[in-house]
Amino acid sequence: MTIQVKVNEPERLMTQPPHVHYVPPDFTKGTLAQAPAARTTTIERDGVLPDGFFATTNLPTYIKEEDGRWVLPREPRMDGVLLRAADGTWFVREGRRVKKGDTIALGLAEDGSEGIFVHAHGFVTGESAGGDFHFMSSQVSREKPIDYALIARMLVDEKRRGGYVLWVTGPALVHSRARDNLVWFLRNGYVQALLAGNAVAVHDIEAAVVGTTLGMTADGAPSAGGHAAHMRAINAVRRSGSIAKAVQDGIIKEGIMHACVVEEVPFVLGGSIRDDGPLPDVLTDAVAAQEAMRAHAVKATMAVMIATALHSIAVGNMLPAYYEDPSRGIVELPTICVDASEFLVSKLKDRGTHQAVGVVTNAQDFMSILRAAVEREVQGLATA
Amino acid sequence: MTIQVKVNEPERLMTQPPHVHYVPPDFTKGTLAQAPAARTTTIERDGVLPDGFFATTNLPTYIKEEDGRWVLPREPRMDGVLLRAADGTWFVREGRRVKKGDTIALGLAEDGSEGIFVHAHGFVTGESAGGDFHFMSSQVSREKPIDYALIARMLVDEKRRGGYVLWVTGPALVHSRARDNLVWFLRNGYVQALLAGNAVAVHDIEAAVVGTTLGMTADGAPSAGGHAAHMRAINAVRRSGSIAKAVQDGIIKEGIMHACVVEEVPFVLGGSIRDDGPLPDVLTDAVAAQEAMRAHAVKATMAVMIATALHSIAVGNMLPAYYEDPSRGIVELPTICVDASEFLVSKLKDRGTHQAVGVVTNAQDFMSILRAAVEREVQGLATA
Amino acid sequence: MTIQVKVNEPERLMTQPPHVHYVPPDFTKGTLAQAPAARTTTIERDGVLPDGFFATTNLPTYIKEEDGRWVLPREPRMDGVLLRAADGTWFVREGRRVKKGDTIALGLAEDGSEGIFVHAHGFVTGESAGGDFHFMSSQVSREKPIDYALIARMLVDEKRRGGYVLWVTGPALVHSRARDNLVWFLRNGYVQALLAGNAVAVHDIEAAVVGTTLGMTADGAPSAGGHAAHMRAINAVRRSGSIAKAVQDGIIKEGIMHACVVEEVPFVLGGSIRDDGPLPDVLTDAVAAQEAMRAHAVKATMAVMIATALHSIAVGNMLPAYYEDPSRGIVELPTICVDASEFLVSKLKDRGTHQAVGVVTNAQDFMSILRAAVEREVQGLATA
Amino acid sequence: MTIQVKVNEPERLMTQPPHVHYVPPDFTKGTLAQAPAARTTTIERDGVLPDGFFATTNLPTYIKEEDGRWVLPREPRMDGVLLRAADGTWFVREGRRVKKGDTIALGLAEDGSEGIFVHAHGFVTGESAGGDFHFMSSQVSREKPIDYALIARMLVDEKRRGGYVLWVTGPALVHSRARDNLVWFLRNGYVQALLAGNAVAVHDIEAAVVGTTLGMTADGAPSAGGHAAHMRAINAVRRSGSIAKAVQDGIIKEGIMHACVVEEVPFVLGGSIRDDGPLPDVLTDAVAAQEAMRAHAVKATMAVMIATALHSIAVGNMLPAYYEDPSRGIVELPTICVDASEFLVSKLKDRGTHQAVGVVTNAQDFMSILRAAVEREVQGLATA
Repeated sequence: MTIQVKVNEPERLMTQPPHVHYVPPDFTKGTLAQAPAARTTTIERDGVLPDGFFATTNLPTYIKEEDGRWVLPREPRMDGVLLRAADGTWFVREGRRVKKGDTIALGLAEDGSEGIFVHAHGFVTGESAGGDFHFMSSQVSREKPIDYALIARMLVDEKRRGGYVLWVTGPALVHSRARDNLVWFLRNGYVQALLAGNAVAVHDIEAAVVGTTLGMTADGAPSAGGHAAHMRAINAVRRSGSIAKAVQDGIIKEGIMHACVVEEVPFVLGGSIRDDGPLPDVLTDAVAAQEAMRAHAVKATMAVMIATALHSIAVGNMLPAYYEDPSRGIVELPTICVDASEFLVSKLKDRGTHQAVGVVTNAQDFMSILRAAVEREVQGLATA
Repeated sequence: MTIQVKVNEPERLMTQPPHVHYVPPDFTKGTLAQAPAARTTTIERDGVLPDGFFATTNLPTYIKEEDGRWVLPREPRMDGVLLRAADGTWFVREGRRVKKGDTIALGLAEDGSEGIFVHAHGFVTGESAGGDFHFMSSQVSREKPIDYALIARMLVDEKRRGGYVLWVTGPALVHSRARDNLVWFLRNGYVQALLAGNAVAVHDIEAAVVGTTLGMTADGAPSAGGHAAHMRAINAVRRSGSIAKAVQDGIIKEGIMHACVVEEVPFVLGGSIRDDGPLPDVLTDAVAAQEAMRAHAVKATMAVMIATALHSIAVGNMLPAYYEDPSRGIVELPTICVDASEFLVSKLKDRGTHQAVGVVTNAQDFMSILRAAVEREVQGLATA
Repeated sequence: MTIQVKVNEPERLMTQPPHVHYVPPDFTKGTLAQAPAARTTTIERDGVLPDGFFATTNLPTYIKEEDGRWVLPREPRMDGVLLRAADGTWFVREGRRVKKGDTIALGLAEDGSEGIFVHAHGFVTGESAGGDFHFMSSQVSREKPIDYALIARMLVDEKRRGGYVLWVTGPALVHSRARDNLVWFLRNGYVQALLAGNAVAVHDIEAAVVGTTLGMTADGAPSAGGHAAHMRAINAVRRSGSIAKAVQDGIIKEGIMHACVVEEVPFVLGGSIRDDGPLPDVLTDAVAAQEAMRAHAVKATMAVMIATALHSIAVGNMLPAYYEDPSRGIVELPTICVDASEFLVSKLKDRGTHQAVGVVTNAQDFMSILRAAVEREVQGLATA
Repeated sequence: MTIQVKVNEPERLMTQPPHVHYVPPDFTKGTLAQAPAARTTTIERDGVLPDGFFATTNLPTYIKEEDGRWVLPREPRMDGVLLRAADGTWFVREGRRVKKGDTIALGLAEDGSEGIFVHAHGFVTGESAGGDFHFMSSQVSREKPIDYALIARMLVDEKRRGGYVLWVTGPALVHSRARDNLVWFLRNGYVQALLAGNAVAVHDIEAAVVGTTLGMTADGAPSAGGHAAHMRAINAVRRSGSIAKAVQDGIIKEGIMHACVVEEVPFVLGGSIRDDGPLPDVLTDAVAAQEAMRAHAVKATMAVMIATALHSIAVGNMLPAYYEDPSRGIVELPTICVDASEFLVSKLKDRGTHQAVGVVTNAQDFMSILRAAVEREVQGLATA
C-alpha cells in the first residue's frame, strides 16, 4: 500500500482561498503604454447621458489623465459613469445624479485603448491542482464545505482593524431564533450598518411587542388573531412616531431594532411594493433609499448578505468588488451571500457581483454556527 | 382480472376543481343570530389606529349594522381596517390612509360574536375520495399535472365576459422568448393591466433597442460591452422623457412596453431598491406604487402571477380572495402563480393568498404552452 | 397601550407539538360495532396476489377476527398485504414474499365495513388557535423555526429508554465536517442502525484513506489526480475483502464506517445503479437490500433521515407511522427528514410518510447544531 | 442616436454553440513528442487493481504504444481502467470486471509524460465576446433561454443519420401528460433505448391498467383506494410474468412500456432500494443493471436525461463525453439534462459529466414543447 494517508483537518476548512492578492497592471507595456488619455464630454441635460458614455463595472478601473498618469476613481460601483469633479478627482456616479455641465468620460473599450482600463484579472490566488478533469468544480453548491472558522476570523479581523461591515438581511432572520444571534452581533461590534427592508423591522418589532412573527409563535404555531399582530405592532410605532422614539417610549424593549438604536448602529430600511404599513423610518422612495444605502456601501470593507434576494442584489449592484486600504492597497471586498438555494447566489453573480462567496444553508443555522465560531475565535485570541 | 380499466383523458386535466361555488352564511342561526352590531370608533390622528381595531383578511367578511343587516365591505383586502364612509358604505382601507374623524370598526373576534363575521369556509367544492390515506396530497408540487386547457378556458371566458385580468410579471419573462408570447396576450385582449417593476421594462426595452437582455443575446451568449446595454437603453428613454414618448419617437419599435402603449393596456411599474436608472415611468415611491396597483386590484376578476416573488406577494397582499359579480354573486378570484420552485407559491400562501393555484415550471415554457392552449380554445369555440 | 407584551422564549421552540397522543377507536359504536370478520383467501402462486387483496397503509390498522376481537398486525408498513400466520398472528408482508398456501386478508374498504379498519385520525394534539385565517400555515418551509432542543431531547430520551434509532443518510454528510459529527453520534450511542448507500461509505473511506472526498480537499479545493481518489479507496477495501477487514488491516483508521465497525453499530449499504465499485459490503441486489433494511425498520422507535431522497423514500416506504410500546401503547414514530429543499420533504409526505417532520437546512449545519444541542441536553440532565 | 438596432430572432435561440469541433493534439511537439510508451502491469486477483493504476476520465484519452503510435481506447467512460486485450486493442473497463492475468495501464499523470494523454481542451467553439465583465455568465439557470429548435434539430439529425439516442427518465414524466409525448417519441423513432427504474414502468402501467398514477387521477385529484392502485398494477404484471407478456395478454393496452414492446425499443429497468414490487422485468442487481445500461451507453450518440437524479448521474458516469464517428471523427456527445432545479444539473457536472447542457424546467412542459418543435422541424424539412 503506497496510498498517501492524510488526516482530515476540519479546522482548516476554507470557503475561498485566503491568500488572494492584487497585482497592479504594468502600464509600461503593450496597449497600455500607448494608450491615449481618456476622452471626456460635458453633460447637456440633468440625468441624461451622451451616446458613448463609459459604463463602469465593479472592478478596479484606471483612467489615463492628460499628463499620462493612470488614476482610480473614487466610490466605484457597476452601472455608473466616470465623472471628473472640478478639482480633477474622478468619481463613479449613477447616471441619474449627473447634472448639466458635469464632465464625464467617453469610451466603449475596456482594454485601455481608449484611455480606460478595466483590470479584470488583477486578483491572483495560488490555487492550482494538476490535471483538468475534476469532480466538484461548481462554484456554488450545498455539497461544498462552509468554512465558518474563516468567516469568523474575517469578522474578528475587521473589528480589530476598524473595518466597516455591512449586514444585508431578509426577514427569514427574524422568523426564528436567528434574531437573538443578530442582536449578539450588533451588541458586540460586528455590524457597522444594517441594510434591510420594512419586513425585517416589522417582524422584529412584532416579536418584541406581541411575541409572534406574522402571528406565528416562536415554536412555529399559529396564534389567535395572529394575522393582525404585525399590523398592531406597526400601529404602535406609528403612534410613537419612529422606531427610536418607540424604544425611548418603552414600547420596544428588545430585539434587532432595539439593539440598533441602543448601540447606535445605523440602519437603512428601504421601502418596497409589498410593505405593510410601512413603519415611519422606512424610506419609501426607492431612489432615496438607494442613496442612503450607497452612503454605507462606499465605506464597506466586507459585506454579509443573508436570506434576501431583493436587498442582496440591490447592495451587490452598488458595491465595488474591491476597496482601497491605506496600508494594504487594493483589497478584494469579501462578500458572503447566504441563502437556502444555490439559485440566489448564482443570480447575484449573474448580476455582476462575481466576488460573492455563496453559503447554501438555512439562515438561522448560519447565524448560530457563525456566532459560536466568532466566540471561539475571540477566545482563541485571548488565550493565545 | 376484475381491475377497472379506465382510459386516460388528457383533455380533462385540472389544476383545481372547476365547480367551486360560494354558499352564503345562515344569519338566522347560532352565534350569528344573536350577534350584536359591530362597534365603531372615531380616528383621532391621521394614520394612527386605536387599540382593538378590526384587522381584515381577504375572505368574505360581514359587518352587522345597527338595523340588523349584515353587509359586505367594498374593496376588500387583507391587512386593512373597516371604514364606514359618510353615506354608511363600508370600505376596507389601509391604516395609513385613515384620517382624523374617520369611523372604523373595532373587534378581535372573527366569528360574528362582536358583530363581524369572517366567512372562511364559504367556498365549497364537490371533491371527495374515500379513505384517508393518499399519496400525492401536497398542494404545490412540480409532480402535479398542470391543466393548461383549464387556464386557457378561464382566460377566454374572462375576455368574453369583460373581466379584468391582472398580469403580474418578473423579468424572467423578458430574458427569453416568453417576451413574444406576452406581447401576443397583450395584443389579443387577455391583459387588462400589467403590474411589474423597473427591470421588466428595462430588459424589454434593452431587447427592443439594443437586441440583448442584460447584455445576453437571444441565444444566451454574452455580447461585447453588453453589461452597459441596459444603461444605454434606460438613457435613451430618459432622453425621450417617458416610455410612451420613446415609442412615439420611434426609439422603441416592438416588445412588451411597446404593446402596452399601442394597445392602451395600463401598466404600473413599481420602483425597488435594486433598480438601475430607473426609467422615467417608474413610481419610485413604494406607497404611491401600491396605490396605483391597488386601483387595478380592486377591479380584478383574475390574476396571473409569473416569476416574481416581490410583486406576487405585493399584489397578493392587496388582492381579495373573491369578488362580487352582479349576476353570479360572490366568486372566488382565480389566482395563478407560476414559478420555477414550489417555495414561492408556498410563501405566497403563507402570506395569506391561500386561493393561489401554483404552477411549478419555467416561465418561458408556461407562456408558450398557455398561448397554444388559448389558440386551441378560441379555435374550438369558433368551430363549435 | 393595551397590547399584550410577551417575552420571546427561544428555549421553547418546537418543530411539532410534543403532546401528541393516541386515542384508540371505540369498537362498540357505529360501523365498527356491526363490522363482519375480515375475509381471507389462500394464495395460489408464489408472489402473485388475488384480486381484491387488502393493501396496507402505515397507519394503525385493526383486523376483526372470527371471534369478534380486533387485532393489530405485526411489522406494519405501507404497500403490503395482511398475512395470517399458522398460529393466527397477523403480519404485514410485501407481496413478493407471499407464498403458495399463505392466508391473506381481502377487502377494499378501510372504514371497518369489511372487517378491516384503518385508524387515520387516532393521533390527537392539543393544538388549536382561534380563527381560520393565518399566515405561515404551510407544513414545510425554510422560514419555520427548527427546534433543535426538542430533537436533542428526543434523541437523549431514546438512548435512556433503549430505543432503536435509525439514521438514514446521503453522501452530503461526508463531503464536509458533518462526518466528524456523525462519528460522534455513533460513538455516543445515538445510532442503532445506519442505512445508506455505497457512496456514503466510499466518500467516508476516501476521506479516511486519501484525505479527500471525490477528490475535493476538506477546504473545497480540487486535488491533483483527485478524480481517481475514490477509485483507489474502493480498490484498497476490495483488496482487504470487506470494510471490517480493512479496519482490522489498519487501512481505515477513522471515520463513519470505522466507528460503525468499532462500536458495532450495524449498517446496511444498499446498492444503486450509480455506484462506483461497489464496495464489497454493498448489497447489490435491491430486494436483498430492502429485506436487510426492513429488519431494522421493524424495530425502529425513531428515524432521522438526512440529505438523501433515495434512501429517505425507501425507508419511509417500509417504516410504519407508529410503533407499539409495552408500557405506552401505540406511539407515533418520530421521523425527522432533513434536506436543503422543501421539495424532498413534501415528496416524502406525498409518498405516504405523512408523519415526517421536515427540517430545511444544510446537512452539515444540522449535524453541528444538533450535536451541540444534545451535549447541552445531557449536561442539563447531569446537573439537574 | 447611434445605438445599434438589432431585431430579435427567436428562431435562432441556442442552448449551446452548435459549431463545437474537435482539434486533435499535435503529438510532434513538446511533452507529447518525448513521451515514453505507457507502462502496463498484469492483474493478480480478479477485481483488485495494483497501486498506481491509471484511472480514466470521460475525455478523449490517448495511449502511447511501444511502436510510438498514440491510440484511443474503445468504450470510453470515467472511473475505469485501461485494459489491453489479447489482440492489442485498448478498452476502458470497470475495475470489478478486470480478471487475473489481464494487462492494464499504469500512471498518474494525464499530460502524456507517462505515456497517457487526457485531451481536456480538444473541443473548440468560436464563442468570444470582448471584455471580461459580463452579466448572466452562469452555466445553468432558469433565466437562460432554452433552444428547443436546436434540440429538435439534433434529434431529427440523429434519426436521419441512424444515431443512437438514449432517453433516461424519471417518474415525473409519467405523473402527467408528458407520458403521451414520450409515447410519441417512442413511436416515431427518436428513442433507441429507454433507461429508467421500476417506478417509471409501475406508474405507466398503473395509468394503463387502473387510470391513475400513485392513485392520483390525471387531473391531480385523489381516488378512492388509490394508494393501492400501483400495487394492483404490479400484481397484474407479476401474474402475466413480464411486461411483454402483459402487453400480449391485453393487460397493458397503451402507454410507454406498451410502446417499447410494440415498437421494439429496448428498455432497461434498474432496480432500486425504494422499489415497490418490483416488476418482473426489473434488474434488481445493481451491477447487472449497470452492465445492461452500459451496453447501450457504449453505442450512444446523444443522451436526453429527464427528471431523474439517480439515473442521470448513473448514466452520466458510464457515458463518454465524446464518440468516434466513422466520417466525422471525434464528436462531442450531446447530453441534455432536464430538471426543475439548477441543482441536479450542477451536481451532474460536479460528478464529471461536464458536457451536459442543462434545461431548467418542468418535465411535462419540456416534453410538449420539444414534441411541437420536432414536428415543426420535420415539416420544415418536408417543405424545404
